[in-house]
Amino acid sequence: MERRYLHLKGLECSRIIAGAWRWNNVDEKTVSNLIDTSLDVGITSFDHADIYGDYSNEKIFGNVLRHRSSIRREIQLITKCGIKLLSDKHPGTWIKHYDTTKEHIINSVDQSLANLGTDYIDLLLIHRPDPLMDPEEVAEAFGLLKQNGKVLYFGVSNFTATQFEMLQSCLPFPLITNQLEISIEKLDALYDGTLDVMMKHKVAPMAWSPLGGGRLLNNSKALSKCSKYKATESQIALAWLLKHPADIFPIIGTTQPERIKEAAKAIDIVLDRQDWFDMLKAATGKDVA
Amino acid sequence: MERRYLHLKGLECSRIIAGAWRWNNVDEKTVSNLIDTSLDVGITSFDHADIYGDYSNEKIFGNVLRHRSSIRREIQLITKCGIKLLSDKHPGTWIKHYDTTKEHIINSVDQSLANLGTDYIDLLLIHRPDPLMDPEEVAEAFGLLKQNGKVLYFGVSNFTATQFEMLQSCLPFPLITNQLEISIEKLDALYDGTLDVMMKHKVAPMAWSPLGGGRLLNNSKALSKCSKYKATESQIALAWLLKHPADIFPIIGTTQPERIKEAAKAIDIVLDRQDWFDMLKAATGKDVA
Amino acid sequence: MERRYLHLKGLECSRIIAGAWRWNNVDEKTVSNLIDTSLDVGITSFDHADIYGDYSNEKIFGNVLRHRSSIRREIQLITKCGIKLLSDKHPGTWIKHYDTTKEHIINSVDQSLANLGTDYIDLLLIHRPDPLMDPEEVAEAFGLLKQNGKVLYFGVSNFTATQFEMLQSCLPFPLITNQLEISIEKLDALYDGTLDVMMKHKVAPMAWSPLGGGRLLNNSKALSKCSKYKATESQIALAWLLKHPADIFPIIGTTQPERIKEAAKAIDIVLDRQDWFDMLKAATGKDVA
Repeated sequence: MERRYLHLKGLECSRIIAGAWRWNNVDEKTVSNLIDTSLDVGITSFDHADIYGDYSNEKIFGNVLRHRSSIRREIQLITKCGIKLLSDKHPGTWIKHYDTTKEHIINSVDQSLANLGTDYIDLLLIHRPDPLMDPEEVAEAFGLLKQNGKVLYFGVSNFTATQFEMLQSCLPFPLITNQLEISIEKLDALYDGTLDVMMKHKVAPMAWSPLGGGRLLNNSKALSKCSKYKATESQIALAWLLKHPADIFPIIGTTQPERIKEAAKAIDIVLDRQDWFDMLKAATGKDVA
Repeated sequence: MERRYLHLKGLECSRIIAGAWRWNNVDEKTVSNLIDTSLDVGITSFDHADIYGDYSNEKIFGNVLRHRSSIRREIQLITKCGIKLLSDKHPGTWIKHYDTTKEHIINSVDQSLANLGTDYIDLLLIHRPDPLMDPEEVAEAFGLLKQNGKVLYFGVSNFTATQFEMLQSCLPFPLITNQLEISIEKLDALYDGTLDVMMKHKVAPMAWSPLGGGRLLNNSKALSKCSKYKATESQIALAWLLKHPADIFPIIGTTQPERIKEAAKAIDIVLDRQDWFDMLKAATGKDVA
Repeated sequence: MERRYLHLKGLECSRIIAGAWRWNNVDEKTVSNLIDTSLDVGITSFDHADIYGDYSNEKIFGNVLRHRSSIRREIQLITKCGIKLLSDKHPGTWIKHYDTTKEHIINSVDQSLANLGTDYIDLLLIHRPDPLMDPEEVAEAFGLLKQNGKVLYFGVSNFTATQFEMLQSCLPFPLITNQLEISIEKLDALYDGTLDVMMKHKVAPMAWSPLGGGRLLNNSKALSKCSKYKATESQIALAWLLKHPADIFPIIGTTQPERIKEAAKAIDIVLDRQDWFDMLKAATGKDVA
């Protein structure tokens, strides 16, 4: 599995990242198996968020990690904060909203550390752009978390170009990723300037829902590539993202070990440029200008 | 009344600004009373434009100021230039258009000084983004006006992020505000990057029509906040803006002294974060992502 | 004919540029005449692309230039690369796509040099924003071409603001133009930030289709200007572009010598500001705000 730095001053991750988004209602044994399968194929980076699985997925992962502390240094733990969900676990929240106050960021990290059974997070992301985000306050929180070693690197998720540059302008160190929804079925970031600005800052984005929610399955153009490259549709969809020069790191969210193995093999597929544009044409419904 | 600098190198204004936009067809006594009421509640900043009231509002204000010159140093006079209206007073204008030539900017300021009965303007704004604006020429005009003390600070109004940065790139001193239409009913600036870029430059925006033209009145969500905060709808709408981290300075345009007093009290309302998002939800019709 | 630099560090061109886009199916004698007519009226800059005329227009021009080598130093040759068309001449291409690899850029320039019968190109443009463009790779190609004297200056075409800044951030020298579709009938670049960002970088744009494809013909507002300025519709349309402070260089694409002479005279028309806004109003259907 290829490994790359998200940023020159940043974190080395496996090019494909395992996402715990859908690891709900699974037991610790299943999670342990998913970790093993991931590590077997070279996937060492795991994407979490405080809220995944109604605030419970970090904990299940942490329960596994507590019994297998030897792997902590081999893996990269990514988690997020900033969303407050309606949940029985947080009765004080009566409307889904964002919170990027210093107090909430620091409390959320402390909770994530406890849940994950670790004393540091490799990469912390602000989950969504909060219209009430005070960038100076976020900078203060990040500075403290970095200083006391609780978080090594920082990034954002679902930020536009201007939101990214606004927060970055207040930080003494670089944000090292922006986790975005990108897939052959969801091209906005390619055209609205977001990827341009990430490339300008030499910050590698991550892609969530890199398979576009399975809608790809009915795309006959993609199917024709499968036979040419002797690959599955999922692999073709991932290979399409991997060819983009922004160095996109796809996050695969599955509870099936076979799907993890399948995805890992996408790294070896090098799509021909014309095939790449043929898939773009199928997705947009038109030729390039 | 809270006071803040629009920019680190800029002008200290009252957080709520009195706008002369609607001070048409009022006599000098009424204006004098509006000034008194404003000063009584701590509102010391007054927003004008050459064109308000068909080029007449500055003069009515100036007639008052001439008789009360002692207050000049206590107040901040903001005015604008760059729009040419169809008006009996300017028979040479046969189509509404913009003019940001050096000649027009300087002439307009000289006229505003004469109208307002003062020898300096605290803050001059380009009223609208003129597609024919030559930023070098504007820079030259601003430089002269600053040098001869006719204008202390400069800003813009209704500029997009790229328009702002384009003009700024030609100036040796910072633009200190961008006056925008922002309200719970008009959220564009929050989502199109304008406020992000203002925050990146640490430039505080002003908000015109901060009450959204009264449309708020039918918003039952806002009504529910009124009872909770023991506040009027207008106060709730202003408090919503005041909570935004961009440091928005709302401009209230009313000829009723009671409305000025009412607005001034909004400063003391600190909306709960969830209430803020609840109002956002009511305005957008959906939960945050 | 007025001459201007596209950029302070850049190339001096005639303010109106002759475009070879439509010089298809014309013989060498016609091209020679078009060159003569252009030079006679002071138009010294010629805009090509590898692909114009199904990859053949450069060669016809070059055949003329080979017999008239004395004019090479008097003219500026602009050409482009990066699009791969479906063409009998390139049977390997089975879908229209973009290619901004180092290999393709360098091969394309070598072919253009051979076609044009010259040993240097004054200005090379990336024809379209390629979603697979690796800016570091383009920078490498540009660097080599500059070093070995094959290309003097570089620019882009049809790039958005963020695409421009992304590529520029990887180059040690300035891009000196962005060739865009701009006309009184196609105003996008005036409002979407593209021209703002060109002005911020002090990069002069070129305008393709500056007459808006002739749709202007039915515009009675423009017609009224014709009599006032004793000018043709085309001249009024060009004068409208020339007044914009971004220093737009219109590219006229015609095979009729008379049309070249006609266009050249547009330089001397200075539209009144109100006429300019009157035409904008006719184009947009509304007054300015």
